[in-house]
Amino acid sequence: MSFQPVLIDGTWKQARLPVGSFAAVNPATKTPLTDRFPVSSFSDIELALSAAHQMVFELPSVSVDITVNFLEAFADNIEARREELVEMASRETGLAQEPRLRSVELPRTTNQLRQAASAALNRSWCRATIDTKTNIRSKYSPLGGPVVIFGPNNFPFAFNSIAGGDFAAAIAAGNPVIAKANPGHPGTTKIFAEAAFEAFQTIGLPQATVQLLYHFQPEDGLKLVAHPLVGTTAFTGSRTTGLRLKEAADIAGKLIYLEMSSVNPVFILPGALKERLNEVANELFSSCTLGSGQFCTNPGLVILLQDESGEALMQEVSRLFQSAPAGLLLNSQVLEKIAAAIEGLQEHGAEIVTGGKEINKPGYRFANTLLRVSGDVFGEHPKALQAEAFGPVSLFVFARNEAQIVEIATYLEGNLTGSIYSHSKGQDNLLYERLEPILHKKVGRLINDKMPTGVAVTPAMHHGGPYPATGHPGFTAVGIPASLLRFAALLCYDNVPQDRLPVELQDKNPTGEMWRFIDGEWTKRDV
Amino acid sequence: MSFQPVLIDGTWKQARLPVGSFAAVNPATKTPLTDRFPVSSFSDIELALSAAHQMVFELPSVSVDITVNFLEAFADNIEARREELVEMASRETGLAQEPRLRSVELPRTTNQLRQAASAALNRSWCRATIDTKTNIRSKYSPLGGPVVIFGPNNFPFAFNSIAGGDFAAAIAAGNPVIAKANPGHPGTTKIFAEAAFEAFQTIGLPQATVQLLYHFQPEDGLKLVAHPLVGTTAFTGSRTTGLRLKEAADIAGKLIYLEMSSVNPVFILPGALKERLNEVANELFSSCTLGSGQFCTNPGLVILLQDESGEALMQEVSRLFQSAPAGLLLNSQVLEKIAAAIEGLQEHGAEIVTGGKEINKPGYRFANTLLRVSGDVFGEHPKALQAEAFGPVSLFVFARNEAQIVEIATYLEGNLTGSIYSHSKGQDNLLYERLEPILHKKVGRLINDKMPTGVAVTPAMHHGGPYPATGHPGFTAVGIPASLLRFAALLCYDNVPQDRLPVELQDKNPTGEMWRFIDGEWTKRDV
Repeated sequence: MSFQPVLIDGTWKQARLPVGSFAAVNPATKTPLTDRFPVSSFSDIELALSAAHQMVFELPSVSVDITVNFLEAFADNIEARREELVEMASRETGLAQEPRLRSVELPRTTNQLRQAASAALNRSWCRATIDTKTNIRSKYSPLGGPVVIFGPNNFPFAFNSIAGGDFAAAIAAGNPVIAKANPGHPGTTKIFAEAAFEAFQTIGLPQATVQLLYHFQPEDGLKLVAHPLVGTTAFTGSRTTGLRLKEAADIAGKLIYLEMSSVNPVFILPGALKERLNEVANELFSSCTLGSGQFCTNPGLVILLQDESGEALMQEVSRLFQSAPAGLLLNSQVLEKIAAAIEGLQEHGAEIVTGGKEINKPGYRFANTLLRVSGDVFGEHPKALQAEAFGPVSLFVFARNEAQIVEIATYLEGNLTGSIYSHSKGQDNLLYERLEPILHKKVGRLINDKMPTGVAVTPAMHHGGPYPATGHPGFTAVGIPASLLRFAALLCYDNVPQDRLPVELQDKNPTGEMWRFIDGEWTKRDV
Repeated sequence: MSFQPVLIDGTWKQARLPVGSFAAVNPATKTPLTDRFPVSSFSDIELALSAAHQMVFELPSVSVDITVNFLEAFADNIEARREELVEMASRETGLAQEPRLRSVELPRTTNQLRQAASAALNRSWCRATIDTKTNIRSKYSPLGGPVVIFGPNNFPFAFNSIAGGDFAAAIAAGNPVIAKANPGHPGTTKIFAEAAFEAFQTIGLPQATVQLLYHFQPEDGLKLVAHPLVGTTAFTGSRTTGLRLKEAADIAGKLIYLEMSSVNPVFILPGALKERLNEVANELFSSCTLGSGQFCTNPGLVILLQDESGEALMQEVSRLFQSAPAGLLLNSQVLEKIAAAIEGLQEHGAEIVTGGKEINKPGYRFANTLLRVSGDVFGEHPKALQAEAFGPVSLFVFARNEAQIVEIATYLEGNLTGSIYSHSKGQDNLLYERLEPILHKKVGRLINDKMPTGVAVTPAMHHGGPYPATGHPGFTAVGIPASLLRFAALLCYDNVPQDRLPVELQDKNPTGEMWRFIDGEWTKRDV
């Protein structure tokens, strides 16, 4: 039986002795799609590694223009195949074509590729640093091995392993990529891979720079991230899988960047509710149910005061949750995990306010679900009550008093984001000042009066945070040029003559537009 | 029996239920010094952690000026106690008072503290990034826990856990520090701690910002680096200990920065020998025997062509090695480890050219030692023949031909440095061009025509490198401001009003001199 081919060393080929096969399932109909994709054996992984290893030595001699042109041509090709992508992704993931896939996620994806192209062209991302007196010069350079990318299930475009933010950053930083498709949307990933293939053939990027495997066994994933030829791994997905990969990489001394689960606490201070209860309720409802709540920045934990306004907010959010149809979920596992997570929350004292069960409509659906728990009970089981329910689920924590609001913040694990809603005229300022210093140590992005969903791709964005939200609090997965630094090693040149230096470190500014840190000053001038 | 007191929570106090005690040993006389220091129980560690945890919340409200003044006062106090420090350090480590301790390492230490003060004052190190359109702002901020510092045995001043580069960087970045003395020089460390104590009392830095324990059991070290209250750990020392700490930290999801062993390959290309054999021999000899070879940048591996010039170089270096007295070693363990490492090299085919044995003069001494091995044999046991012999020991690898020189580079593990000596008029250029792309992926600092010892403290310096030289190739342990970034988390403020932002991210440039990345441009202007 023949499966969809994998992309190894610039060639579409049948997987070598695959250990199995799989098909995506349409979550709306619960029926498998027709294309079957191989579960690769380690032999495919080895072929890809060996081809990528060659690229590590070829790519440095490839002109930056080629990389830039590739990223731009790839973005063009994606736009040319927009309708095909949107249709396939909606079939594989159940996500709405409009506005989500066509008007939001696809433009975001091509925008990321073009921003990465622009960063590669400008070269400032590599933070060239020159000390003229000592003739010591350094910059961030590509890693000595390919970047392995595991994309998540919830962003078939913008975090796709072969087209998303990690891919764009890894390529722009000069690394070859081995992409592993998320098994939830292999058909979408295949279209991206074809678009990339066409682009690198047209532009002349060395052909093993971009490789794709659809799936492999978990134990082979562990071997891959620990393999001596790998540069680093970028993983976006569940904490369980992320921590297993981390352990394997750690033991081998291999870098790994992980973006794992997050419950994104939202603190709603009393003044905000007095001032704009309905507005807050609507924002919370929209953010919780957007994309059926399947976002790493979904507001899964809401902390507020146990008083009349707090109860009123919960009633209003509950009403909105009930009024909205249960959205489609990505697949049956997401559904099962939501049910299990809610059971775990209930076991530790949370009570269901609304929802809490699977919906018997066509497709995988779970009712929009609100739970509640007292601050006292939360304090007894802070870890269990922070378990992520990945979907349209949120837990309200009702604090006895303001001191307990602050206390709850001390129990929080590392999160991607933390939001504080407060009175616009300063009535909550005293409480804000007690809460913020604690909360900001637990999150990567501290937000005021806004929900955490919606992650702008701008230089100051930080999509990361303290463990266990990620594996390192100093790196962001979103935001160019900073996201490129995950895929680079600092390399210093000591007493190396001009003609042996990379152009970025030679006296003359290679583009005239590149920022360099020369003798302690950021400048675009020549040395 | 009473021991020297530890410094916990701003107070000099007796260790609580110490599990033992130790004294430094004078390596020149092999006799213990009089002062006895406690081996702390975990109860001292817990006290220090709890006090440091309070600092995490106090320090952000302390003016940067206080930190700056502390670092400068500390440097002043060190200079005031220069002679006492030099005398104690030479007694505890056997290192030469002049020029090493008094004229090189002590000025380097105070210079690092003052550079760190200047970086803290200027604030550019935190890489404030502002996107005005979206009002998203981010910067590197102190970690949510103390920095635990384990200093190495070989730099009693410049890498001392309570006065060296890691200490300066951690404090300048706004973190409290828990220093663990290297048990080789507790008396020196005590003087530094007293100087720091006096400085923070005078200046008014919160008193638990700087704490000191002298020693604890290895298993308590593992518990410490994995402790939930710890921010990160900076370790400089042996690979064996480093990897054990790494494993403990990794499992707990805690950051750890490691600077472990390195053999610092030096490639001497044929043209360089034709041109300046004696010069190269002298440089190699000096670099190998400086400080009795006890440097992390000691050139432990020399790769060259098996020909007449190669043999002549070895003969000349061998003659110089024999002519020089065997220097004092830090302690008996260093001596034992050298002997064991040389035995290991011999077991894998290396032959002793000169030295190879302990010297029966007063003090711990090992003969300056050269070994040799063929490129063929090296290729058979590349890992074993890269084992570090920490001391005045170097292994010459004689390659059959130029291709084998390049091949040897492919076998190298990650190193702090890699040097290439070549002909000054370009006769080695073809070989350089084949070798450099391979070598530069294995090292943090690529050096031309210079030995690796001597690590300038300048912004472009990179003292780091790929695993297993360190745990992360993107961070440097030397060079300010970059070394501060190890001790910081990226923190983003999304939609946060001016008066709630840290001053570094407010519209007005807080110093007028701080570099910020505003809308994609580095600038000192206000928003």
